[in-house]
Amino acid sequence: QIAKLLEMKAHLGTDEGKHKFVLKTPKGTRDFGPKEMAIRERAFRAIISCFKRHGAEVIDTPVFELKETLTGKYGEDSKLIYDLKDQGGELLSLRYDLTVSCYSCAPSHPNSAGFCIQAALTCCILKLFYCSHAVVLSCSQPSPVPQDFDIAGQFDPMIPDAECLKIVHEILSELQLGDFVIKVNDRRVLDGMFAVCGVPDSKFRTICSSVDKLDKVPWEEVRSEMVGEKGLSPEAADRIGEYVQLHGGLDLIEQLLQDPNLSQNKLAKEGLGDMKLLFEYLTLFGITGKISFDLSLARGLDYYTGVIFEAVLLQQEKEHAEEPVSVGSVAGGGRYDGLVGMFDPKGRKVPCVGVSIGIERIFSILEQRLEAAEEKIRTTETQVLVASAQKKLLEERLKLISELWDAGIKAEMLYKKNPKLLNQLQYCEDTGIPLVAIVGEQELKDGVVKLRMVATREEVNVRRESLVEEIRIRTSQC
Amino acid sequence: QIAKLLEMKAHLGTDEGKHKFVLKTPKGTRDFGPKEMAIRERAFRAIISCFKRHGAEVIDTPVFELKETLTGKYGEDSKLIYDLKDQGGELLSLRYDLTVSCYSCAPSHPNSAGFCIQAALTCCILKLFYCSHAVVLSCSQPSPVPQDFDIAGQFDPMIPDAECLKIVHEILSELQLGDFVIKVNDRRVLDGMFAVCGVPDSKFRTICSSVDKLDKVPWEEVRSEMVGEKGLSPEAADRIGEYVQLHGGLDLIEQLLQDPNLSQNKLAKEGLGDMKLLFEYLTLFGITGKISFDLSLARGLDYYTGVIFEAVLLQQEKEHAEEPVSVGSVAGGGRYDGLVGMFDPKGRKVPCVGVSIGIERIFSILEQRLEAAEEKIRTTETQVLVASAQKKLLEERLKLISELWDAGIKAEMLYKKNPKLLNQLQYCEDTGIPLVAIVGEQELKDGVVKLRMVATREEVNVRRESLVEEIRIRTSQC
Repeated sequence: QIAKLLEMKAHLGTDEGKHKFVLKTPKGTRDFGPKEMAIRERAFRAIISCFKRHGAEVIDTPVFELKETLTGKYGEDSKLIYDLKDQGGELLSLRYDLTVSCYSCAPSHPNSAGFCIQAALTCCILKLFYCSHAVVLSCSQPSPVPQDFDIAGQFDPMIPDAECLKIVHEILSELQLGDFVIKVNDRRVLDGMFAVCGVPDSKFRTICSSVDKLDKVPWEEVRSEMVGEKGLSPEAADRIGEYVQLHGGLDLIEQLLQDPNLSQNKLAKEGLGDMKLLFEYLTLFGITGKISFDLSLARGLDYYTGVIFEAVLLQQEKEHAEEPVSVGSVAGGGRYDGLVGMFDPKGRKVPCVGVSIGIERIFSILEQRLEAAEEKIRTTETQVLVASAQKKLLEERLKLISELWDAGIKAEMLYKKNPKLLNQLQYCEDTGIPLVAIVGEQELKDGVVKLRMVATREEVNVRRESLVEEIRIRTSQC
Repeated sequence: QIAKLLEMKAHLGTDEGKHKFVLKTPKGTRDFGPKEMAIRERAFRAIISCFKRHGAEVIDTPVFELKETLTGKYGEDSKLIYDLKDQGGELLSLRYDLTVSCYSCAPSHPNSAGFCIQAALTCCILKLFYCSHAVVLSCSQPSPVPQDFDIAGQFDPMIPDAECLKIVHEILSELQLGDFVIKVNDRRVLDGMFAVCGVPDSKFRTICSSVDKLDKVPWEEVRSEMVGEKGLSPEAADRIGEYVQLHGGLDLIEQLLQDPNLSQNKLAKEGLGDMKLLFEYLTLFGITGKISFDLSLARGLDYYTGVIFEAVLLQQEKEHAEEPVSVGSVAGGGRYDGLVGMFDPKGRKVPCVGVSIGIERIFSILEQRLEAAEEKIRTTETQVLVASAQKKLLEERLKLISELWDAGIKAEMLYKKNPKLLNQLQYCEDTGIPLVAIVGEQELKDGVVKLRMVATREEVNVRRESLVEEIRIRTSQC
């Protein structure tokens, strides 16, 4: 390993200073150009405005964490964590998700998000989300970090849980990603089910991992993993097999509450009771049409303790689809009442429920969609190009554009002393700028500016003092 | 080294799974709570809207880069680069600034910002900025990454350079950081000055580094570094000493164009000519009052080739200032015509000029300011709290809040089944929510909602179907 590194270093040494670079981005990362960023911005705006609509505050945590903070929180996912080489000797890792990062903030750090754990422990309600900033990570890390919204504190059952599902519903509806369903389950229902099916306590988590694969592989494969690799009895597996095919709404919950086996299990009964309450609240929100109580939903991460959920896009039959639109999970979350306690010296429990939006998958879908639709995407918001019809008018263009900038108008000009009018108009066509403000000798004498609408080629003379207002009016519909 | 790591690893191993964590953030990083983030968001909005006003497109690049990409670009700053330990064997570093990262994107990557270099090489104009996403880095990295705005491509002299200075002027004015001055110089003027003062060519860069310290240490110290450590002749140092005290405007430029020594130097003459043109454009922008041509300005980074500039805040005498407000450089930038060529296999030069906003310093100043003013900062944008006056109205609250969310109103409710009205009102006082929509038995019968203005305690009954509009009107001034 060291020899390899030394060899690479020697190699680097010889390249230094020379003008030969193999330009590539690190494995698992990509760059984002203006078109991609414009799509991202659109999606982010929808997500963030939804979080804000629900009263969330925004926090941020460092990109990297002490390695020990992240250790023991992710189960089998742990091997996906990226380590850093810190010059100072601290062992650091790139943060893996925002949930652990948030609550691991230093409580001794009063001005910081260390705040989170303090506030969560002192019983007030905390609604937080992680601002667009997290995108750097989701852009660049092999395991994309989603956008998170979390509610922590003391609350009556299922009220914030229902709000998390409402948030997912609002975001997916607004992004117009196509038809979707939000699967819901409860870890206590799962554990109760495992118990009544005859799974030994010690195998709960590993059998849960197997169930989690049901969205990707058929039951037969999952069954053989349970029985073959994990040593579960075939009878127990078959009993699980019957439960995990079930999905429905309030009716299914009622049915399971009557189930002779499940109804005898304390955990399952608790979970089903909460599930019923949840569905009542979701009915008030008018969103049960997209919600499915699904006993096959397990979710991978270890820290969930109650309700879990996952939103999946449904495959659509598209007539002109050249490539199949990738589908799958685009959001997920659940209750994690134990996590904050892991960071509290006294081990106090704080109820928490959160939702993560799978921003990378959403971007991919939006990108594929827009590419398929061949929609032209503007990458700037420029309202007007300041142009000149004759030579020697650079100074007049500079004066006018300066006035427009100072009035808050988004304006550009070509960086040439004497650009041709045709080139200036072409630039508007290429970049989608809707208006051109043309200065010319005659217009200057008359105290007017010629305003041209690029789409219609219509031109009107506007008095200089009314130009800002005229541009505002004409671009307000854009 | 390895023994040390193994020891640390062993140590970590024993901690795993236990509930004892020493919670701290890695050296040089900090977390950001809602209050800090609210201040940040305000500042970011001003900066980004300015970039957009000037027609910039937004891009993003990975948080980490191949180490070789960054090697040899930063001169003495190189030792500040953070290295990563990549599991896959690639040598990676955290990106250090955005300028190098941007142009190092893979040209073979058509959908990415690899775009940058391609576009820059194909002669079209490119105006880019790096979106708020970079804040993750500036929040967390020991060497904060500023927000950048860059123009690359073919342009006539000084037009985009003048725009960069206009941008700095607009941003600093809007942020109301206090009085400031933007110092301007040109690398060619500096190099010409070194030449006529008798500095050998080989010492240009190192003497330039010494001059760069003049904003922090007095001339005598810089002089003794030049003569003592760097072996410059005392006569040359004294000649430099006379030039670097000079600062002024167009008058000083004219004076130096007549300087018997400088006027004989080709580089200096070129630089002074461009500087004159720049000041003419800045006069048209009406911002020369804050611009100072300053021969002591050198800027540290190696890659500058022409105009350089740096904005500094001026110390203000404050009557009630408990602590001195920290001042210093808050923005800087310049021309770097050679950088893109370093990444181009054919070594083609592309003129580039850019500005970096020192976001961390700006945040610190805003934070100090707001703390001193004891201004209450809202951390959410919630317009209305949905409350109830009696018990058993949870379902009605859920129905109403759902209607409001669907209409785009920012609304919250307490997560309690039967919260006391007093607690609900107190929550509004604490968080700054301006309105309360109260549902009660009587209001439900009458088809109205009681809308309470928190500040004035005024209450009006509003018909349910007019509630959304009423909330919009009453919060539009906020």
